[in-house]
Amino acid sequence: MNNIFDLPPSLPDKELFESLITNDNILIERIISTGQTTPPGEWYDQDKDEWVILLQGEAILAYEDGSQIKLTVGDYLFIPAHRKHRVEYTSSNPPCIWLAIHGDMSKV
Amino acid sequence: MNNIFDLPPSLPDKELFESLITNDNILIERIISTGQTTPPGEWYDQDKDEWVILLQGEAILAYEDGSQIKLTVGDYLFIPAHRKHRVEYTSSNPPCIWLAIHGDMSKV
Repeated sequence: MNNIFDLPPSLPDKELFESLITNDNILIERIISTGQTTPPGEWYDQDKDEWVILLQGEAILAYEDGSQIKLTVGDYLFIPAHRKHRVEYTSSNPPCIWLAIHGDMSKV
Repeated sequence: MNNIFDLPPSLPDKELFESLITNDNILIERIISTGQTTPPGEWYDQDKDEWVILLQGEAILAYEDGSQIKLTVGDYLFIPAHRKHRVEYTSSNPPCIWLAIHGDMSKV
């Protein structure tokens, strides 16, 4: 049985992105962050919609308009395609465990 | 901020299915179970693939071949479309909180 909280015995210095499910339609991935943030001045600008939940740790996201969102365990949000965002903070102890789903989530 | 662990003040007698994201392409839903199981002799036989994770509680799933899968917090699994399955057990204290994603997850 696979468990989302099972971490590798040692974590890399970079964020760890692991595809759990992937095809042209959808990507379900686990992301493990241990203090990393988006480099200054850089933004995620994604072609697909994203739904993301933080399952362990604490984190802060920011949008281009300057708003910040503090996330604790269980918090989830929807980020539409091309809504620019960045990661301002991730806890390292415990590591952040994110579950992110990418795909077309637009309303008809 | 929405949190997956925030439960309604009172839970219904039936399982509670809540769509978090839904369109023709994808359904992301939270399911809250408090002891309910699939009625005897009945099976889920879904047109779409499902990826599901148990985020609170304990549960047992069963497949048509008689195999059973015990799930604890953080366990996740992929259930291909039309793989018949049923829920044999769900804990009520604490309630089971499931996060399920339905869509086309087939490999090309």
